[in-house]
Amino acid sequence: MRIDLHETAKILLESDNVLLLCHSHPDGDTLGSACALAHALSAKGKNIRVECSDTIPKDFSFMFEGLESREFEPDLIAAIDVADIKLLGRDFEGRYQGKIDLCIDHHGSNMLYADKVCLEADSASTAEMIYLLLGIMELEITPVIASCLFTGVSTDTGCFRYSNTKVRTFEIAAELAKLGADTYNIIQVFFETKTKTYAALERLALDSMRFYFSDRCALICITQDMYKRTGSDESEVDRISTLTRQVEGVLVGVTMRELKDGSYKASVRTHGDIDASAICKRLGGGGHMGAAGCTLLGTKQQAINSLLKEVQAEIDAYTIMK
Amino acid sequence: MRIDLHETAKILLESDNVLLLCHSHPDGDTLGSACALAHALSAKGKNIRVECSDTIPKDFSFMFEGLESREFEPDLIAAIDVADIKLLGRDFEGRYQGKIDLCIDHHGSNMLYADKVCLEADSASTAEMIYLLLGIMELEITPVIASCLFTGVSTDTGCFRYSNTKVRTFEIAAELAKLGADTYNIIQVFFETKTKTYAALERLALDSMRFYFSDRCALICITQDMYKRTGSDESEVDRISTLTRQVEGVLVGVTMRELKDGSYKASVRTHGDIDASAICKRLGGGGHMGAAGCTLLGTKQQAINSLLKEVQAEIDAYTIMK
Repeated sequence: MRIDLHETAKILLESDNVLLLCHSHPDGDTLGSACALAHALSAKGKNIRVECSDTIPKDFSFMFEGLESREFEPDLIAAIDVADIKLLGRDFEGRYQGKIDLCIDHHGSNMLYADKVCLEADSASTAEMIYLLLGIMELEITPVIASCLFTGVSTDTGCFRYSNTKVRTFEIAAELAKLGADTYNIIQVFFETKTKTYAALERLALDSMRFYFSDRCALICITQDMYKRTGSDESEVDRISTLTRQVEGVLVGVTMRELKDGSYKASVRTHGDIDASAICKRLGGGGHMGAAGCTLLGTKQQAINSLLKEVQAEIDAYTIMK
Repeated sequence: MRIDLHETAKILLESDNVLLLCHSHPDGDTLGSACALAHALSAKGKNIRVECSDTIPKDFSFMFEGLESREFEPDLIAAIDVADIKLLGRDFEGRYQGKIDLCIDHHGSNMLYADKVCLEADSASTAEMIYLLLGIMELEITPVIASCLFTGVSTDTGCFRYSNTKVRTFEIAAELAKLGADTYNIIQVFFETKTKTYAALERLALDSMRFYFSDRCALICITQDMYKRTGSDESEVDRISTLTRQVEGVLVGVTMRELKDGSYKASVRTHGDIDASAICKRLGGGGHMGAAGCTLLGTKQQAINSLLKEVQAEIDAYTIMK
């Protein structure tokens, strides 16, 4: 059942023991949203626990400071920013199958696997929704909550650069800054700091960039060998996916990365009316209009070919439409 | 004489024929601020002209749409975002020496060359000051004015990433977005679009990056030869200067570029309490705490050595201070 933010607020306020689940391969939005909610509800005396099937990267550890991680039997299990129960990660998927009471999310591709779903597909981040939700619940936004939410708001919009950034995004960012979010350091950590190993990987990535379809598609492919040569690893590869779309004239930017099991994960970023999520859905993946992903099997060349075929179909459809 | 925004508003409202001067090598802040003021004052029936000694790059041409460029004898000459009369450019410097009635600026290094100076050194951009000024003058901020100002606000803060970004910056950005600024396209043009020639230049720049002082200083040197090899040119080089400071552990990022006359222009970007403007002032330049510049003569190696000497002094002072 689809519910709105007011109904969501009511459910959360009525629950005393809440388990909040984040998606695996956690990012600033799933963690920032869940932790903001956890801090705010804990302050009301509730038992709140945030869980993620993957280890929390150290850049996000500030979000957990001051949160107790008490054991309790939840009377509400809520998935935050999780579009598909599969995205909880392998162990969690089995454990929580059929048991998710509530999902708060902004992914248009949400699989509606939860009992109640609060979904705003036009919200740039789940963090924006949580900001509004805290207002409805009349819970105080402390500086640490503001920082959690600002992390979600900024990381899911590429620091206000993606097309999902709306007037509301800037307004909420301004409110969070006023409430004491550590905007400068958050932006430095997530957008303005490259490790030396990442900088080396980025150089190889740029060298590997190839162009297709009259330069309207740019493709980067990161191999396991590149990690070895640079001392970098998969934890650093997310930012690479913004590089392709930045080249003038490129409508579809694709970043493929070889996983340890030999399969390829593709991140597709698009401009304008080209639907990244349509491209990825046809290959078993999903996401947003401007940013989506999928996993591909086969050799590197086979993976590239399957993806380029769908990219071409989408570019052709777009060109005819214009 | 130093004056505040209210006195500045009064002077502007009392003048009927206003010449607004931008600095040479014009950027989003000088042009966005001057054009916003020009649009708003023109709508009050005044004669306003914006002048710059350099050609206006095409990315800024939208700012001039709808502005009449009538000839008239100014009763007020105002320099906008111009810290030093030298920065008006060679011809303009001679022409306007001793004739600047008003300067509106946010550079701490302002030389106070104008008769009246409205200076807010803690403002992230001159555009923020113009936004407040328009409010004081009760002039309407149309979508095009909002776009001019948003260009200044975003470009002078590296799209909200530099340390000069304050709560007020986010608040004004949100207001401008609400007033119809074309935030998405402005950010795409100035931050998310690389020409293919720029992308090639960036690759060479990253390859040329060298580290000094236990990796606390990173230095890139762009030569005329690099422009030749990539088909790029000086108009594309500004963005390179953000690359050095992004590497983890780097406190001072230096980007040197060889000018056509064989001299070198250095852009210095710093983190934390290291004063870029102090480094550059000792070499005859100036700027802000976090971003400054200067021009160096001699061979490439001599230029690098002079600069590194001052960088080292500043890093040493910082280390002792800590």
